[in-house]
Amino acid sequence: MKVPLMKEIFGANDQVALENKALLDSNKVFSVNIMASPGAGKTSFILATVERLPKSLKVGVVEGDVASSLDAQTIAARGLPVVQINTGGGCHLDAPMVQSALNRLPLGEINLLFVENVGNLVCPAYFSLGTHLNVTIASIPEGHDKPYKYPDIFAIADAIVLNKIDLLPLVDFDLEYFRRGVSMVNPEVPLFPISCKTGEGLEEWVRWLLLKVKDAFS
Amino acid sequence: MKVPLMKEIFGANDQVALENKALLDSNKVFSVNIMASPGAGKTSFILATVERLPKSLKVGVVEGDVASSLDAQTIAARGLPVVQINTGGGCHLDAPMVQSALNRLPLGEINLLFVENVGNLVCPAYFSLGTHLNVTIASIPEGHDKPYKYPDIFAIADAIVLNKIDLLPLVDFDLEYFRRGVSMVNPEVPLFPISCKTGEGLEEWVRWLLLKVKDAFS
Repeated sequence: MKVPLMKEIFGANDQVALENKALLDSNKVFSVNIMASPGAGKTSFILATVERLPKSLKVGVVEGDVASSLDAQTIAARGLPVVQINTGGGCHLDAPMVQSALNRLPLGEINLLFVENVGNLVCPAYFSLGTHLNVTIASIPEGHDKPYKYPDIFAIADAIVLNKIDLLPLVDFDLEYFRRGVSMVNPEVPLFPISCKTGEGLEEWVRWLLLKVKDAFS
Repeated sequence: MKVPLMKEIFGANDQVALENKALLDSNKVFSVNIMASPGAGKTSFILATVERLPKSLKVGVVEGDVASSLDAQTIAARGLPVVQINTGGGCHLDAPMVQSALNRLPLGEINLLFVENVGNLVCPAYFSLGTHLNVTIASIPEGHDKPYKYPDIFAIADAIVLNKIDLLPLVDFDLEYFRRGVSMVNPEVPLFPISCKTGEGLEEWVRWLLLKVKDAFS
């Protein structure tokens, strides 16, 4: 009885996103959509997170890129199951792309799935994938004005990661101005300043993530 | 006689791009479309370039942003005529947006126009604006793999600028790998490694730009 109503409410992408969510839930796979500018450190962040997770938690990755499989190769070199999506010019992942990737992953053997979106601070904000969490990564060299200039991708985030804080002393970046921008568009969102290079801040992020994973299927 | 044929060949955006080009040419305004990731330093690059131009060359700016007028304010503070375009979620400028901006600029008093596109390494590659040059800016902290992962925006560039080279000693960035990636998608394009912070490399870029400006209307 509900299906016709849902089709009225949700567009085609959102309908597939719901199917993705249901598939992930039925396999008890917790999933995280990682969004950021090109070069903010999405792949490094996924790998740095995986290093700090309990070994019992099995991780899989979906890699979204306009072209190339460089990141997927990096992920695969760590022995993680990974599926590459090349959008061929497309500026974001959408739910059908993720659905096709899920169908190629051993979901029964995975507890936590990272979906690395195309490097883009605009378009990924408008396409639900069916993941459990949206994480937006900003990075110090990009500058402190990003939440003001790209508000939507900060507004939809369940967590915001501020990467490359090791570069903070070298770059003109006002952390309080950045925080204020985040608060304006997303008042309650947790902010994790980290450095994938030095490891700073990653423990706190991983602790928070593990609580979310635990809460999801308990 | 030509118009119907052109309408067959070009889509609506490209048709308006041609009109923009004609309007700019008739006013002898040389124009540069600046494309880059968020935070690569587009506004700083425009300002650093303007500082090094002969005073006789009058500059105007069109600022494209998803939201806010922060960059336009920065430009206006330097006393330059500037028009802000807010795309309201749109991930790139298009020719009609630029057309409306041109109509609000004192084109008769401008010799050189910078059009700062929305921060995005994907979508701006697919929309001609009618400018004379496309310049793509990459930056050191984004990493050396960008030409491989976002080939189209490097392929359409008439010049590539590599900003923030002052951070080269601090970041894992293989300049030769980057150069190779650029050569693969755009063999003849000039590459200008620069730092807006230290000024390094900017003279060479400005010299090249001034030759282009001179050639255009002589």
